[in-house]
Amino acid sequence: MQDAMQPEETPALRELYAGFRAHNLNPLWTQIGNLMPSHPRPKAVPHVWRWSDLYPLAKASGELVPVGRGGERRAIGLANPGLGGEAYISPTLWCAIQYLGPRETAPEHRHSQNAFRFVVEGEGVWTVVNGDPVRMSRGDFLLTPGWNFHGHHNDTDQPMAWIDGLDIPFSFQNDVGFFEFGSERVTDYSTPNVSRSERLWCHPGLRPLSGLQNTVSSPIGAYRWEYVDNALNQQLLLEEEGYPATVEQGHAAIRYVNPTTGGDVMPTIRAEFHRLRAGCESATRREVGSTVFQVFEGRGVVVIGGASHSIEKGDIFVIPSWSPWSLQAETDFDLFRFSDAPIIERLNFDRIKIEDGGQ
Amino acid sequence: MQDAMQPEETPALRELYAGFRAHNLNPLWTQIGNLMPSHPRPKAVPHVWRWSDLYPLAKASGELVPVGRGGERRAIGLANPGLGGEAYISPTLWCAIQYLGPRETAPEHRHSQNAFRFVVEGEGVWTVVNGDPVRMSRGDFLLTPGWNFHGHHNDTDQPMAWIDGLDIPFSFQNDVGFFEFGSERVTDYSTPNVSRSERLWCHPGLRPLSGLQNTVSSPIGAYRWEYVDNALNQQLLLEEEGYPATVEQGHAAIRYVNPTTGGDVMPTIRAEFHRLRAGCESATRREVGSTVFQVFEGRGVVVIGGASHSIEKGDIFVIPSWSPWSLQAETDFDLFRFSDAPIIERLNFDRIKIEDGGQ
Amino acid sequence: MQDAMQPEETPALRELYAGFRAHNLNPLWTQIGNLMPSHPRPKAVPHVWRWSDLYPLAKASGELVPVGRGGERRAIGLANPGLGGEAYISPTLWCAIQYLGPRETAPEHRHSQNAFRFVVEGEGVWTVVNGDPVRMSRGDFLLTPGWNFHGHHNDTDQPMAWIDGLDIPFSFQNDVGFFEFGSERVTDYSTPNVSRSERLWCHPGLRPLSGLQNTVSSPIGAYRWEYVDNALNQQLLLEEEGYPATVEQGHAAIRYVNPTTGGDVMPTIRAEFHRLRAGCESATRREVGSTVFQVFEGRGVVVIGGASHSIEKGDIFVIPSWSPWSLQAETDFDLFRFSDAPIIERLNFDRIKIEDGGQ
Amino acid sequence: MQDAMQPEETPALRELYAGFRAHNLNPLWTQIGNLMPSHPRPKAVPHVWRWSDLYPLAKASGELVPVGRGGERRAIGLANPGLGGEAYISPTLWCAIQYLGPRETAPEHRHSQNAFRFVVEGEGVWTVVNGDPVRMSRGDFLLTPGWNFHGHHNDTDQPMAWIDGLDIPFSFQNDVGFFEFGSERVTDYSTPNVSRSERLWCHPGLRPLSGLQNTVSSPIGAYRWEYVDNALNQQLLLEEEGYPATVEQGHAAIRYVNPTTGGDVMPTIRAEFHRLRAGCESATRREVGSTVFQVFEGRGVVVIGGASHSIEKGDIFVIPSWSPWSLQAETDFDLFRFSDAPIIERLNFDRIKIEDGGQ
Repeated sequence: MQDAMQPEETPALRELYAGFRAHNLNPLWTQIGNLMPSHPRPKAVPHVWRWSDLYPLAKASGELVPVGRGGERRAIGLANPGLGGEAYISPTLWCAIQYLGPRETAPEHRHSQNAFRFVVEGEGVWTVVNGDPVRMSRGDFLLTPGWNFHGHHNDTDQPMAWIDGLDIPFSFQNDVGFFEFGSERVTDYSTPNVSRSERLWCHPGLRPLSGLQNTVSSPIGAYRWEYVDNALNQQLLLEEEGYPATVEQGHAAIRYVNPTTGGDVMPTIRAEFHRLRAGCESATRREVGSTVFQVFEGRGVVVIGGASHSIEKGDIFVIPSWSPWSLQAETDFDLFRFSDAPIIERLNFDRIKIEDGGQ
Repeated sequence: MQDAMQPEETPALRELYAGFRAHNLNPLWTQIGNLMPSHPRPKAVPHVWRWSDLYPLAKASGELVPVGRGGERRAIGLANPGLGGEAYISPTLWCAIQYLGPRETAPEHRHSQNAFRFVVEGEGVWTVVNGDPVRMSRGDFLLTPGWNFHGHHNDTDQPMAWIDGLDIPFSFQNDVGFFEFGSERVTDYSTPNVSRSERLWCHPGLRPLSGLQNTVSSPIGAYRWEYVDNALNQQLLLEEEGYPATVEQGHAAIRYVNPTTGGDVMPTIRAEFHRLRAGCESATRREVGSTVFQVFEGRGVVVIGGASHSIEKGDIFVIPSWSPWSLQAETDFDLFRFSDAPIIERLNFDRIKIEDGGQ
Repeated sequence: MQDAMQPEETPALRELYAGFRAHNLNPLWTQIGNLMPSHPRPKAVPHVWRWSDLYPLAKASGELVPVGRGGERRAIGLANPGLGGEAYISPTLWCAIQYLGPRETAPEHRHSQNAFRFVVEGEGVWTVVNGDPVRMSRGDFLLTPGWNFHGHHNDTDQPMAWIDGLDIPFSFQNDVGFFEFGSERVTDYSTPNVSRSERLWCHPGLRPLSGLQNTVSSPIGAYRWEYVDNALNQQLLLEEEGYPATVEQGHAAIRYVNPTTGGDVMPTIRAEFHRLRAGCESATRREVGSTVFQVFEGRGVVVIGGASHSIEKGDIFVIPSWSPWSLQAETDFDLFRFSDAPIIERLNFDRIKIEDGGQ
Repeated sequence: MQDAMQPEETPALRELYAGFRAHNLNPLWTQIGNLMPSHPRPKAVPHVWRWSDLYPLAKASGELVPVGRGGERRAIGLANPGLGGEAYISPTLWCAIQYLGPRETAPEHRHSQNAFRFVVEGEGVWTVVNGDPVRMSRGDFLLTPGWNFHGHHNDTDQPMAWIDGLDIPFSFQNDVGFFEFGSERVTDYSTPNVSRSERLWCHPGLRPLSGLQNTVSSPIGAYRWEYVDNALNQQLLLEEEGYPATVEQGHAAIRYVNPTTGGDVMPTIRAEFHRLRAGCESATRREVGSTVFQVFEGRGVVVIGGASHSIEKGDIFVIPSWSPWSLQAETDFDLFRFSDAPIIERLNFDRIKIEDGGQ
């Protein structure tokens, strides 16, 4: 939007503006072009963080920084370069690499912020969510929705790192967050292969009669890699056989959902997994809201706002609101994605524009 | 409700009543006790049909009655003895045994009536739903929701029988049904182990991005026995370990659901599977609406309205609205259940009364 | 649908059919054409009841039939000629003329059946709904949703008649009804002009903070004629001024709604009011479900299934499911309408076909 | 929450932290106490703006600042003293006094930000929303939901001022806003007493058949004072008569709602009107989310976070998230209220605590 035409600066106007300041007032006409642009003009910028940078720094912090009550987590937030150094990957979302050394425990707490973990490599940690120990392994997507007690412990002699996603910036900005300490140690150190939540809920199309009440967030503690991998393979096979199953040619994708509603896993965070065949080039999309990807496997290019970035396993990138983006797969290409889409959609601010077709 | 006190019969009253009849009128005061009882007084009665009776008759009809266009299906409806010979198992529901001989085809058609099949024994038939061939095997629950073309074919040299459930009586009574013939033969004679609908949808907690629009009925063509069996086992194991997972002590149960909503598979029919440990005795329940069970495995007793019926594999029984009922398991006891609960609940007529505890 | 081709009748087939009867079975192939027609083929027929017949018979019953406990109401049901003499205007709906003599009281009761009253002429009766006295006057639409205690009393020396609409046939057919007697007299004989429900709820777009919980049925006891009349006038004026406001040219209409949801007033019954300018001819519509009209004012023609019926003030007519119908207004023409549309829509059986345009 | 215990600062740690900064990272453990407090600790502070300050400054700007394309509106935002000078009354909400001189026009535009106006005094301006001229008068609450074109014009020789409420801060912070210029002049200078939106929609419990599709925001352009005043009076009268109708003793309140859903008028903003009898003292409440009040009539005290503020006609105050607040009415006391509650509730962050009873 064009810059606002401003009144001529006169002594009377200066006095008026001084009056505004004295009474905690601020006129719209001097700032409307900034506050109400013709389309979203995010302060947040597109950015790629390299796993080859992240992991060594996480490992170094494992040696220097204790994990325990007070600091709570050895988590290192990805700070969007446009957001003034705050550990915000976008105005709404937090993304961090968390690191837990051999035999360490991160103490239990709970908060109204919604959280998940995604594991790009490694294994051996259990996260204990409301007393239910949930194994964390490569490719798993794990939930700790708002106000569930949770802690983690590493049952092995090897360290493990993963990424955390939360709605901390949104929660902080809008003053909605509560926090409570729980047990200093996790409440259950057993290491089952499958959590109780999965045993109750992970049967396709089947709902326990003991769980007929819908829940705000998904009751599933872990979405296992084997199911995701299989679902994506089936989509690509169905496409090959001539049936509609993919998002676009060569591009399979699933959304993780709350089985009690079919909707997003948590009220503020959407999570998906995307698989592009080698050579696939996605359409260019613009969407209202912020989105984050982590490459799970393979190698390719993301184009954001016209700039191309080569990306590979573990790399994390953020796409600010309304920035055009597309993906190009150099190899078979697997990416985990999360976003603030439920916030945008529940408040009816969603818009999408598909600018052109891909391959 | 007490019988209505009636006005004294006088010539003037007789003349009035003749006037009513002449003008297609009928007074409330002569019939209110019947029309508006203090609680549901169904014409439908509790009844048990024996598999040992059903199967031989189905087999005999296989020899005498062709399957093909016109008759459409070799299906024999269970006629509630209280409903005047109509093939209605309840005022709302149809339940039939369907029989398909070796190499036979039941031609394709579609109707607004919602339908499912449940297989208590046998295998070898594929039902083709909107072109998607769906294998039918023991323990599977299969959907053909309203207005989907479907036909069946037997790919083997053995006959096969199963039960059909539909909302034919409701649809007929309320004049909502449409019907269309399709292909004389099924449109795809291939015999895949897994249908395309399952390949796209049967991944726990994962939704394809190509299927984000909610659907009135479940998109899943077949709910496989292995998943049901596993879900029920897990509930009983969790109960043993001390966690809430079952309906009541020793009684595990799942509801088949539409993964796009978490709700019932079809707008008029609810379907569930119940497993009682040997010795388990359920609470006595009264519910508004009609319900039907088929014993899948094991042996026990159902008590309906105070009368006990021994039941075993394949037996089918109906519980009319508001009749008190309970189950007693003599062995480990598996039962498939379907009902008109979505009709009752969507119209806010649902009531439940749990009369006493079980074991 | 064509009649089913039937197997040749042989001794073996006769024996088979005898076996079916002996075991409470009934084959589909002999009846599918009837049970599952290609489109709804209602037993109910189109029919018009004349107010000039109804009112005198109601008046005569006022002299011969007491109103009181047992008979409960002096209500005379309109019996669809196609439904075998039952007092059902359609398979789902009950419509009756109710008559209350000077100073009479109809005792309180409650039932799960949903009920409304509509007043085509007269005044002087108050219906007391859960203790709230609600004045009944010409043009008013009054609710007694399921399980609300209600009675009526006539506060004048003149008799009064009105029509009742209920879901008695649906409730009876599907065994969902409960009934309870209340006080022999109404619990409050005061005669306020405006009920408490209206004082709390009838402020456009304003919801009391004491009523933030949504309710299954509308909390409004009376929808007053003056508001309906004004709403319809405004629609026609807006149309004249060139703005979209009517259903079709010259045809204004409102739906009575539950202010807590914006949806139908009760879970099983939809109610509307239609106004056609003199000369207006509506499009011809076919809809799944049964609908009933009463002429409130003016004169015109209804065409149902190709047959024309002249209708005037007080006349009541029923349109069975999927029958084509249209209206022609000879004068300015006001009609009250009710139907079972919420049943049809909530169970996803709704279809509509607009066959041609009107004037 | 206690301050996090921090690792000892060593050269290695300093190096680690430098590595973080170099790679756009920021650890959680140094800031968790700030980012994730035990309960909301808003930067926004409680504050009262005096109408006696606001109006003269608005009037002065009327003489010095033109209204027209570019600046768009002569609106002066209330800047919460805790939010660094930004014209944000809370992290989510914008509140401004807008002033339009005699015969002036504010040009048309549209934006995805949701907006309303509330008139504490004066008349003579029409706001034209999507071509529908809407009169603005004392006590009226007027909507311009997201993406509706709107402009204003003053049809009199007197100036007029009112308050605007929008979700500008939320929209700016989360990068969801779009903006478009419309006509330089309003598209319709007629001055009807009642807008077309009211003529179509403001009939209690009646929905036009031409408006059966639910809308994201209310279709009502103006909620008139006379209806609000009457609704509140009726609540207090009902309370006097012994019926439940008020929020608490002596405290009547209505919420402005979308008649198509019964829910909030817009996806991000809730609006209510509260009336306290002289002498009434409300309970003390804490709620998640930000709320703003303007005194419409009368005099009283608001207690926020333990500090008392005398308030009278036109005064505006803000209550930050989770701050305890209560009202005391010295005279009969009328207050308009708006808040971000729909944001909070749709994202399931709502909590409320009623700390003690009032009078």
